[in-house]
Amino acid sequence: MNNISSFEITIKSIPDISPDQVELVMSQFKPKNYSKNHFIGRQDETTRFTAYVEKGCVSNYRILDNGKKSINHFAFEDWWVGDLDSFLNQKPSKTYWLTLEDTDLLAITKQDFDELMSSVPPFQIFFLKKTQTAFVKEMENADKDKSETALERYMRMMKNYPQIIQRVPQYDVAAYLGIAPESLSRVRNQARKLIS
Amino acid sequence: MNNISSFEITIKSIPDISPDQVELVMSQFKPKNYSKNHFIGRQDETTRFTAYVEKGCVSNYRILDNGKKSINHFAFEDWWVGDLDSFLNQKPSKTYWLTLEDTDLLAITKQDFDELMSSVPPFQIFFLKKTQTAFVKEMENADKDKSETALERYMRMMKNYPQIIQRVPQYDVAAYLGIAPESLSRVRNQARKLIS
Repeated sequence: MNNISSFEITIKSIPDISPDQVELVMSQFKPKNYSKNHFIGRQDETTRFTAYVEKGCVSNYRILDNGKKSINHFAFEDWWVGDLDSFLNQKPSKTYWLTLEDTDLLAITKQDFDELMSSVPPFQIFFLKKTQTAFVKEMENADKDKSETALERYMRMMKNYPQIIQRVPQYDVAAYLGIAPESLSRVRNQARKLIS
Repeated sequence: MNNISSFEITIKSIPDISPDQVELVMSQFKPKNYSKNHFIGRQDETTRFTAYVEKGCVSNYRILDNGKKSINHFAFEDWWVGDLDSFLNQKPSKTYWLTLEDTDLLAITKQDFDELMSSVPPFQIFFLKKTQTAFVKEMENADKDKSETALERYMRMMKNYPQIIQRVPQYDVAAYLGIAPESLSRVRNQARKLIS
């Protein structure tokens, strides 16, 4: 039961949460298991749940007007998935969420989520802080992405998210870095020379 | 008193807010007037207030490890300014906020903000929604910025924020688009040909 416990640790570590509230929160999240290459969310669909990743990897991306696939991030273990805007406001999503490995989630529906948000204030604060942290991180990454060279972006990815290189297909790494797939091997070679 | 009224309209349009609450909220925001090229916030300083822009323009940027200036956005009239992470958590900011024009703000301190957040629930929801909307927009822009060409980014800026070209110096436009200042005129010429 190792997988359950990482979620349990997360919920138990919420500041000011009582044992009863821990039990209530945990009971609202239901396991969902998907095989590799399954869309847990698509553009134009309304997101039915938000979920904690127990095991696996999910890519979150957007298809731009120019036809390119732009990957915002990869959600590994202990990340959360689901289009926030679509989930919270129950409107069509603008992004895709695709499993890149067999993936085990713990998912909560919008109705159960709303009930927890009003009945368990520590959970509400936890969720708002998570969102805020994600926003701050997104701004920092966005500012760096647009002004760094491809090599600098690659080096930062290697430092902050080394699991991406180990677990994600090459063409998805390129779509995450915002470079053409055929440029990736050049950037990797440059990186190798820098490191060695 | 045209300037006051845009803020008044904003506050009065908060869903479910009562006239008394409107008055309370408005009384907590104090005018601050800055001349052009004034830092209203700097990296490593703790942000003392968040503010509504009545008039003027503020650039929000970051100096990257590679020495480049990366501009996240320009806040014009009816935008909000102040490093969110630094303000909410009262910790050192990672970004700069510089006026690009003489700028009139309506500012609220952290203490007054916290009081409003707990005493005026409609204001709390308004602020959380604003933040959420900004986060969603940030993700969309970030995904586009990293996968679009410089010309595509320029065209999108022209469409969504035409005031940038009219009010912001060329080198800041380049730092916003994530391109070298010397590349900007080439991109502008390409854009001109596309439009004509």
